[in-house]
Amino acid sequence: MSFRKVAIIGLGLQGGSIGLATQEFLPEVRTTGFDLDPATRARAAERGLVHQVCETSAEAVREADLVIFCVPPGVMGEAAAQVRDALREDALISDVGSCKQSIATALREALPDHYVIPAHPVAGTENSGPDAGFAHLFRNRWCIVTPPEHTDLVKLSQLVEFWEALGANVEIMDAQHHDLVLAVTSHLPHLIAYTIVGTASDLEDVTQSEVIKYSAGGFRDFTRIAASDPTMWRDVFLTNREAVLTMLQRFTEDLTALQRAIRVGDGDALFGHFARTRAIRRSIIQEGQDDSRPDFGRGDHENGTKKI
Amino acid sequence: MSFRKVAIIGLGLQGGSIGLATQEFLPEVRTTGFDLDPATRARAAERGLVHQVCETSAEAVREADLVIFCVPPGVMGEAAAQVRDALREDALISDVGSCKQSIATALREALPDHYVIPAHPVAGTENSGPDAGFAHLFRNRWCIVTPPEHTDLVKLSQLVEFWEALGANVEIMDAQHHDLVLAVTSHLPHLIAYTIVGTASDLEDVTQSEVIKYSAGGFRDFTRIAASDPTMWRDVFLTNREAVLTMLQRFTEDLTALQRAIRVGDGDALFGHFARTRAIRRSIIQEGQDDSRPDFGRGDHENGTKKI
Ligand SMILES: NC(=O)c1ccc[n+]([C@@H]2O[C@H](COP(=O)([O-])OP(=O)(O)OC[C@H]3O[C@@H](n4cnc5c(N)ncnc54)[C@H](OP(=O)(O)O)[C@@H]3O)[C@@H](O)[C@H]2O)c1
Ligand SMILES: NC(=O)c1ccc[n+]([C@@H]2O[C@H](COP(=O)([O-])OP(=O)(O)OC[C@H]3O[C@@H](n4cnc5c(N)ncnc54)[C@H](OP(=O)(O)O)[C@@H]3O)[C@@H](O)[C@H]2O)c1
Repeated sequence: MSFRKVAIIGLGLQGGSIGLATQEFLPEVRTTGFDLDPATRARAAERGLVHQVCETSAEAVREADLVIFCVPPGVMGEAAAQVRDALREDALISDVGSCKQSIATALREALPDHYVIPAHPVAGTENSGPDAGFAHLFRNRWCIVTPPEHTDLVKLSQLVEFWEALGANVEIMDAQHHDLVLAVTSHLPHLIAYTIVGTASDLEDVTQSEVIKYSAGGFRDFTRIAASDPTMWRDVFLTNREAVLTMLQRFTEDLTALQRAIRVGDGDALFGHFARTRAIRRSIIQEGQDDSRPDFGRGDHENGTKKI
Repeated sequence: MSFRKVAIIGLGLQGGSIGLATQEFLPEVRTTGFDLDPATRARAAERGLVHQVCETSAEAVREADLVIFCVPPGVMGEAAAQVRDALREDALISDVGSCKQSIATALREALPDHYVIPAHPVAGTENSGPDAGFAHLFRNRWCIVTPPEHTDLVKLSQLVEFWEALGANVEIMDAQHHDLVLAVTSHLPHLIAYTIVGTASDLEDVTQSEVIKYSAGGFRDFTRIAASDPTMWRDVFLTNREAVLTMLQRFTEDLTALQRAIRVGDGDALFGHFARTRAIRRSIIQEGQDDSRPDFGRGDHENGTKKI
């Protein structure tokens, strides 16, 4: 491994998982970490998320040759500005944020003299905080790396190597396309899930306890992602606004068409639509991104979600 | 158990599960079954879904004191009419359909001289057909029974006892309220999931293989229910049209409000909404209708999803 010292800023789900994975898969690499919240720092030290939890971010990054920002999308620039004067000249700067265009801009503006190569591991759970991380989060999941146009190819390949060591499959993509792809595979689904869970809890004719009781009919599947961290998701929608609104527009058109089919009783249109979506599920299972087993195969790569 | 002979019409996920559960939990009860599809009948006999698979529905119901229709919602009336002349006079008629008002009407019109007490086990998977059923489908799940106003209380309590023997918790509800509750906890979630999976597969800028590859970001959770049986779901939306359209209207209003918050950059509104929905997830887990473990607790009650 080309990196010897990795600093992790933000010790929640992502930061904690990177720390644990690095210690497990790259035992020769030294890890330091920082989190704004003193309680998180204390818990991170207790769980040993990194070798050394520091009291300031400057201290955490001082000797690092790779610095990864694992804070909410909206504070990436701010967190980067805080370490500017403490960074090694040759340190590579990266992050794990869920949107790439706006975060790349924020990091580059905060650290104009450093190499910045953003990344996004497409791996998560609905949990957050210092207890949420586990070493196998990235196993058999994709990590999208979005280098700027004229990037240092050596640094790029080092970052790719790092993520592969943590168990991820790496894909290189430009930031704009990343934001469009994730708008549909992640941001829109979260928005929809948040919406429907809100709708269901505001009805006058159906009580909240009825909604909970009969959730196994389908609603349940939406509540998992609607339990995700509010800060992160607020930031995602604000920082990837254009792409999300574009996808939402498409979704609304399609929903209106199905609504019309229901209203006029067009059974053939409904059947045709429903039959088509079945095939997609099959492909996802074949690709190993989900599983038809009762645990959806999550046991395979999440063998550490229990709190330690 | 008051029932000695139970006939099951339709040997897919629901019919097969009832047959297997009855044999496991009520070994003294004799089960017969029929399915329109000869291939399903053959496979049902092979798996032993019921003691005896019959060649006609009339033959299956002839001696039964409980007849349960487990066919798609749209053909309940037709399936019932076919056995009218073969039924015992005192046979209790029930079903498992996902909508209750229209099915109750269809069954009563087809069998005006019989006791009809509809029911709906809120338990399912995305699979269908004779290989999908398993004995523990109903364990720790709710079964909603929707008796007509002046029902025979003895028959009602016998039906309740039957479902409880199969592992379900029974709730009595009027059919209209059932249809409203299920519109929000089941029908709307399915409609939304079908829509978003369709939207994602029709984009020009994002390929279907990208959608599949990065589905772990949230999209994956929707594909499971969007893989459900198209015939059944077409029928559900056509038979529970009013309630579904009402709920859809509410959902659209809420979605429009969030869309606006994204457009104008109202982070507080987004945060407020997202923080609220988190609590609902917690209640569902407490109620035992889902689970925070990696397998969502599905292993507990689905110990037989594998094909035998
Ligand atoms: N969750 C997912 O599924 C997922 C998946 C892929 C990528 N991501 C990305 O990963 C990043 C982190 O998400 P996460 O899920 O790990 O969230 P998390 O569990 O909430 O962790 C974020 C941590 O960063 C801390 N923090 C906030 N501002 C900070 C600052 N200026 N300096 C240092 N620490 C700071 C937070 O402390 P406080 O609690 O005190 O704010 C929190 O402990 C986000 O950018 C997100 O977009 C998330
Ligand atoms: N799936 C769920 O999650 C779920 C949950 C609760 C309630 N339900 C309700 O359960 C009922 C059955 O659903 P399911 O999931 O068990 O579907 P399924 O697996 O497709 O089984 C239905 C079976 O009924 C057969 N059939 C159709 N018309 C028939 C007729 N006239 N006579 C006899 N058999 C006939 C079908 O054969 P063909 O294949 O030849 O049509 C099929 O084998 C539906 O009313 C549904 O609303 C479903």
